[in-house]
Parts: sequence; C-alpha cells; structure tokens
Amino acid sequence: MHQREALSAVSHPIRIDDPADERLAAYRDIRERDLVGREGRFVAEGKVVLNVLFGHSAFQAESVLILESRLDGLSDLLGRVPDHVPVYVAGKPVLDAVAGYHVHRGVLAIGRRRTQPDLDGFLSALPARAVLPVLIGISNHDNVGAIFRNAAAFEANGILLDETSCDPLYRKSIRVSVGAALKVPFARSGNVEGILAALDRHRFECLALSPRGRTDATALDCPGRTAILLGSEGHGLPDHVIERLRSVRIDMSAGFDSLNVAAASAIVLHQLWTHRQRA
Amino acid sequence: MHQREALSAVSHPIRIDDPADERLAAYRDIRERDLVGREGRFVAEGKVVLNVLFGHSAFQAESVLILESRLDGLSDLLGRVPDHVPVYVAGKPVLDAVAGYHVHRGVLAIGRRRTQPDLDGFLSALPARAVLPVLIGISNHDNVGAIFRNAAAFEANGILLDETSCDPLYRKSIRVSVGAALKVPFARSGNVEGILAALDRHRFECLALSPRGRTDATALDCPGRTAILLGSEGHGLPDHVIERLRSVRIDMSAGFDSLNVAAASAIVLHQLWTHRQRA
Repeated sequence: MHQREALSAVSHPIRIDDPADERLAAYRDIRERDLVGREGRFVAEGKVVLNVLFGHSAFQAESVLILESRLDGLSDLLGRVPDHVPVYVAGKPVLDAVAGYHVHRGVLAIGRRRTQPDLDGFLSALPARAVLPVLIGISNHDNVGAIFRNAAAFEANGILLDETSCDPLYRKSIRVSVGAALKVPFARSGNVEGILAALDRHRFECLALSPRGRTDATALDCPGRTAILLGSEGHGLPDHVIERLRSVRIDMSAGFDSLNVAAASAIVLHQLWTHRQRA
Repeated sequence: MHQREALSAVSHPIRIDDPADERLAAYRDIRERDLVGREGRFVAEGKVVLNVLFGHSAFQAESVLILESRLDGLSDLLGRVPDHVPVYVAGKPVLDAVAGYHVHRGVLAIGRRRTQPDLDGFLSALPARAVLPVLIGISNHDNVGAIFRNAAAFEANGILLDETSCDPLYRKSIRVSVGAALKVPFARSGNVEGILAALDRHRFECLALSPRGRTDATALDCPGRTAILLGSEGHGLPDHVIERLRSVRIDMSAGFDSLNVAAASAIVLHQLWTHRQRA
C-alpha cells in the first residue's frame, strides 16, 4: 500500500499553471521571504539539499516544487518524498513568476523544523566527548552556511548560535551548507553570557578563537566536551569573553593576518577531528 | 614638492555632479563590467582593498572615487594615493547612478595591472622553496577570492590559474580576497597540460588534492617547490591528472564527504605554513 502510494505520488505530480495558485503560497517571493514571515518554514533548493531533507528526521517537508523540464532526471529523489507530501510541477514562466527570480536549479521544497530545542535540552543530549562550534554575532548567511558544511565534514556534534547570529535555515545558508544546516543539530538562543553559563552547567570546556589567542590551534585536543567560540569577521569575540576563556589562535602571516571565520572553523574542526580519529 | 602635491590632491578632490561625466566612464555599470570590456582594468572596493592597492607595486591605480559623506574619515587612505592619480568625489545619487547599483561602501578605485607575466617568467621568479596553489577550472568568484585570502594568510608564494578559472581581478574576487588578489603574485595561462609541463620544467613537485588522494594532508611537508592542484567543486580534477601526480586527501566524515574548495585550501596551506615555520 505504501509502495503504491509512493509510486502514485511520483507518477502523478500535481501540475500547476497559475502563478497565483494558493498551493504555491509558501514559494512566493522567495528572496523577500528570507527576511520576514517565514513562520518556522524554510526553503530548500537543489537536489543535494533535498536529499538531506528527506533523509533527516529533525525536519519535515511540506511540499516539493519541481521545474517541469527537470522531472525526468529526478525519479530517485522523488521516490524518497514521503507519501503525504505533495509534489507540484510547473513550467519555467510559472516558477519564476512565483519565486520572483530566475530559479535556475528548478528543484525546491518547503520544510519545517519539527521541534525547536531549548538550550539545556540541546546541550544535555550531546555525548560526553563532543565538539561544539558556538557562533557569536555571525550574521553573514554565507559564513554560517560554510561553518555548518565544515561541521558536517568534520563531525562536530552540533552547533550553537547566539540570537544575533543568523538563522541557519535561511535559504542561502542552507544552500551554502550543501544541506548540512539540515543535518548538524543546532540551537539558536540567548546572548553570550547565557550561553557561557549553560556551557558551564553542561561541563563544556570553552575555547575562544582569536587572532590574539594564547594557545596555537595545532596543539588542540578534545578530551571531553569542547565548545569553540567563533566571533564575527568585523569585531571578533568581545574582549571580556576572550579573557575569561582558554583562547586559541591560528598562526598566520604577520603581513596579512586576516582569515575568514569559516576558513578558521575548517582548520580548527579538521584539527580536532584528526585528533579524535587518532585517539 | 612631492609633499605639497600629495597634500594638494587630498585637499582638492575633484567634485563631480554629472553622472554622465566622462571622467567616471570606468566606473559605469560596474556589475556588467565584471563580464565584458574591462580592458585590463579592475575595480577595487573598500578601504582595506584600496590600502593594498596603494601599497603594492604590481598594480597601478588610475583613479579613485569616493562618496562625499565618507571623505572625512579617509584622510589616511587619501594620503597614500599617488600624486598623479585623480580623486573624484560624488554625492550618493551620482555614485549610484554611475555604478548602476547601491554602492554602500562608497570607496572605489580603478586599477590596472602593470605587467602580465608569462608562465615561465612567473615560475622562474619563485624561490627554491615555494608553495604554489594551482587552480584548475575554478570559475566561482567567491572561491577564487577566498583561496587568495588563504594564500596571503599562509604566505603561499604565488597562485597559478588555468584559463578556465576566473580572473582573480574580478570585482567580487578582489572583495572576497580582502585585497589578497592584489597582493599574492599570480599568473593565469593555458590548460592543465601546459601548466603541468611548465611546473615540471621549473622543478615543482605537483600534488593533486582529491577526496580519493593517497596521502593524508596532515602528512604533507614542503621541502622544495610544491604546487598543489585544486579542482572545481563540481567535478574536481580530471582523473588522468590525479593518476599522474602524488594525490593528497583531507580525511573527513564518510557520511558527509563534502568540503568547499576554499576550505580545503585553508587546511592544506595552513598545514604547509605550519611545517615551514617549524623547519
């Protein structure tokens, strides 16, 4: 029965020819939707991201929207769409009119987070040996997406974001993360003080990444629960935070001491991953 | 005399009120200019990038264009503008009309590369111990800019790009590189076969970075001249290239083996830099 329904959904996607059709309301003016009125929903784009969405239980898909001309090449993906999720199909003019821009990939879905974990619940669920990037004031969607991608590649156990960092479920962050934003568990809550207190309650050692850090990153290991605080490109972490924590630096050229925060996260997460593999 | 001219240039920037003024021709429709008709010129944006431009001899500035309201805060920068380079000043409506978009930083310059090195000349000028990222088919402006930034931070001696990689002097690449595209020497020439032959002539050991590489990146050192070939995100390096060279991998999660090429360059360049510092 389930098998037949799945096949039926794949065989009979719902064709929509009217850009004003209310079933596509969640896809309307996608770029503006990044800013306001997302109501817990997110937009997933592209085959790779949708495969993560359908394979990960923390998120549920509400609908799928496929460009007509892409349909033939997507039977594997469409076979993974849960039975109850409608698959809409539209021609290019309709798709572009609804989305409000030129949707060149032509593979979209609307998803929703099943649950929004609170900070203590999130931290207590992490294992006794854990690596946790903590993003403070990182509001650039590309950087947040790139840090999630690095976290997935190097098996960080989760990501924590303060309330001034951007939501990883922004369309662009999900896209840059290649779906990792739907895969790596995360919580986004409170300010740096509240986060540090919670990390302390849950017995995390907190490292502050800073160009002026006292410990070189190549000396890092991760014996227990390790949180790595990362600040924004412009301002970095607040001084009072760096002073209170064990601070870590990535040594680099004195003539060009400028590293993107996502690149820095790649180096530190790779270091910790390599160390854990060998331990 | 020089002192007086410099002061004079700072004291008397040239005010322009007509968006059609021919002296601003090089700033017209900046975004389209990224694609065609650059004629050896490039657009530099922002204070940090302009500081690199005025401090680096491989490039000459042709003119500077400043948003009127930014002028007061830029006396240090303007003091570094060479005497013969005109500094134009315009109000916001004029600047946006000329550039064709909302120029929020309000600090622009037109630059030109003094010389375009040929491949052999470029390679022979590198030192006996050198690290050289080689970009094959990397056409994404962000990735190219980010790789330049990492190369500057970890003191790569230059960057080589094949003809299918994008020009590092595209506006967006320069911006993402935080000026490193104007600082790290580079050549962009020919295809992968011609590049490998030239690297061989100049006694480079060539490493191919690939998820299927035989050597783990953490084992890398750099005893002499080392070239690291990096391929595009989508396709990576051609198989026949990987098979001919010493191949290097960055170990990562089997469940998410996806690392951005710029992040990969950060890890490898950091590894080689750390090794060189300790040697």
